[in-house]
Amino acid sequence: MNKVKAPYSLNSKAVAEATTHWMQERGVKVEEIAELVMFLQQKYYPTLTMEECVHNVEMVLSKREVQNAVLTGIQLDVLAEEGKLFTPLQDMIENDEGLYGVDEILAFSIVNVYGSIGFTNYGYVDKLKPGVLTRLNDKSTGQVHTYLDDIVGAIAAAASSRIAHRKQAEREQELGLPHAPEDVEEAARKTAEDQLE
Amino acid sequence: MNKVKAPYSLNSKAVAEATTHWMQERGVKVEEIAELVMFLQQKYYPTLTMEECVHNVEMVLSKREVQNAVLTGIQLDVLAEEGKLFTPLQDMIENDEGLYGVDEILAFSIVNVYGSIGFTNYGYVDKLKPGVLTRLNDKSTGQVHTYLDDIVGAIAAAASSRIAHRKQAEREQELGLPHAPEDVEEAARKTAEDQLE
Amino acid sequence: MNKVKAPYSLNSKAVAEATTHWMQERGVKVEEIAELVMFLQQKYYPTLTMEECVHNVEMVLSKREVQNAVLTGIQLDVLAEEGKLFTPLQDMIENDEGLYGVDEILAFSIVNVYGSIGFTNYGYVDKLKPGVLTRLNDKSTGQVHTYLDDIVGAIAAAASSRIAHRKQAEREQELGLPHAPEDVEEAARKTAEDQLE
Amino acid sequence: MNKVKAPYSLNSKAVAEATTHWMQERGVKVEEIAELVMFLQQKYYPTLTMEECVHNVEMVLSKREVQNAVLTGIQLDVLAEEGKLFTPLQDMIENDEGLYGVDEILAFSIVNVYGSIGFTNYGYVDKLKPGVLTRLNDKSTGQVHTYLDDIVGAIAAAASSRIAHRKQAEREQELGLPHAPEDVEEAARKTAEDQLE
Repeated sequence: MNKVKAPYSLNSKAVAEATTHWMQERGVKVEEIAELVMFLQQKYYPTLTMEECVHNVEMVLSKREVQNAVLTGIQLDVLAEEGKLFTPLQDMIENDEGLYGVDEILAFSIVNVYGSIGFTNYGYVDKLKPGVLTRLNDKSTGQVHTYLDDIVGAIAAAASSRIAHRKQAEREQELGLPHAPEDVEEAARKTAEDQLE
Repeated sequence: MNKVKAPYSLNSKAVAEATTHWMQERGVKVEEIAELVMFLQQKYYPTLTMEECVHNVEMVLSKREVQNAVLTGIQLDVLAEEGKLFTPLQDMIENDEGLYGVDEILAFSIVNVYGSIGFTNYGYVDKLKPGVLTRLNDKSTGQVHTYLDDIVGAIAAAASSRIAHRKQAEREQELGLPHAPEDVEEAARKTAEDQLE
Repeated sequence: MNKVKAPYSLNSKAVAEATTHWMQERGVKVEEIAELVMFLQQKYYPTLTMEECVHNVEMVLSKREVQNAVLTGIQLDVLAEEGKLFTPLQDMIENDEGLYGVDEILAFSIVNVYGSIGFTNYGYVDKLKPGVLTRLNDKSTGQVHTYLDDIVGAIAAAASSRIAHRKQAEREQELGLPHAPEDVEEAARKTAEDQLE
Repeated sequence: MNKVKAPYSLNSKAVAEATTHWMQERGVKVEEIAELVMFLQQKYYPTLTMEECVHNVEMVLSKREVQNAVLTGIQLDVLAEEGKLFTPLQDMIENDEGLYGVDEILAFSIVNVYGSIGFTNYGYVDKLKPGVLTRLNDKSTGQVHTYLDDIVGAIAAAASSRIAHRKQAEREQELGLPHAPEDVEEAARKTAEDQLE
């Protein structure tokens, strides 16, 4: 390259902000993902609040792996919507082609952030398409959400896994069980999160 | 080791036969998995037959990766049923503990054999637990199917992915579209499979 | 959408041809990937020929999952090279940012096509960067190969796994061991492949 | 079941302690895994200390997903060593059979805990087998470490990924960059971890 460039330096905050920006830009609210979490978890935790669901979605969205997948997926959706991808990738993404599974692969990297216990929840919402997923799957709008559709379900599944881990930690604390190092981390994290709110 | 041993030599047929044997021994029939495939695929392919479903389940079961996961999972189920695992692994597997996700991990290695398009189907049947999965989840029998439960759903999901790939190939052949190398492989494989039946 | 469109119909051959086209366009020859396979497998199979390596790479490239990942990855590389992605995704892909791991995720979906036994080979070539991988990693050219670099290593790892499966099948046939259904499939596939050559 | 049982209640601390116990019992010290981390990361972070490596290995080991995989893998190794698995699973695990990849699958669930950026490091140490991995791979001892071998490499790879994430956060803090929520979490976690030491 001939052009002079400032040395590249990652700015994590910029990555996080772009994630928030592009989710909004593509019409997905954190609250809508939180509703999917509520849909998935209510029967296991009857006292679960929407506030908790929102909080857990936000924590999932604060992970770098998740941000990377969200930005990459939305970028491909946007380019497909503008018709700017090469053939036949353009057709496959534009039409959410059944044998094209890279969107599922990205979604899975999100679910995996809180481990394998989220696999089932992901598949379930991705099949039923409740709430915001119905809108993202509406093929009549001219919008392309081939990636975002799966990504939103994956974020909800990951947030559900996070809740399962924390509820167990809370239960053990109430029982006065001695804490594993993870719980102390968890407690400190909770304090930090509360300060953010 | 002091004991004299014949050098180890893998016998693929023995692995395949053990897989069939242990599925039967644990009470799961190929036909029951085929019913799950029919449940998942019928609405996409209204002319799909039970015979095709059975055939595709058998082809999934003929893969070494699948056999490895099936044998390992069933072995852990059996040992948990006999109370022979160490604590606390014994408790986690015996009780199908919510934060224990190694069963899902093995299941996923099965789904992956035909790619990421099967992720959704896996989660869906694993949540709804239709047919044979209801029986495998009955915790009142004293039997432990923590692994097999997820494995059976994964085999059904993988068989569904296999059907999706083949139906597309058939459609293109009918349209007289020039064939990709994969199709020729597929055609040859089909011939081979027919000879097996 | 108001514009009249012909209904979408996937053409597998077009996907396969685009994969071949774009690999060439980005400067990667099948022979170069085959050299990576030889590098990885020679010590296990001293009689392995370059012809076999080339053949196994071609078979990996004939899989739809692999084609999907190759096309998606190259598309992102090309757009990053042209500066057409949004910030900060543009910076992360252009600079092969260390905390950006979506390229590894796509690479892994390729390795997985022949199962988990390829994981190690992938990591090994991705670290050592032998042969063509050195060229793809040269950051001084102005070209961006953030995805293709990992993809090429993954194809070599998958081809290595394929060879391991086939060599075992050959060994058992020579020993006159009874064949598993998989071997018959394999034999038929081999015939089909020979017809292609 | 007729026998009266106390209702099952998971105790996270018991799971964590069993993990520590069984790693020691099988002859693997945290320091030895930390040496693998140093081997992998030294060239990227010349000031990295053994203390930091040990700390990051401990944090990886405090994750439930990691503990689940470690316990399951070691259990299978121990049973194989005692000859208590059914045929042919016994032979495959006892001989670390090349086409048996469930050990790699479990290892990967560990690497994934800190995302896809660890894939390469895992494959690299698994191939080179430095330090403790040489001992775990010595087939002449009568001990079976088919799973533990891969698990130890995976823990080292995950700890390396954790270091990469934290070093980036530290760098941004030094530059006075505004912090992403994740950094605040990280800072709180660090405080909590310091209290543990």
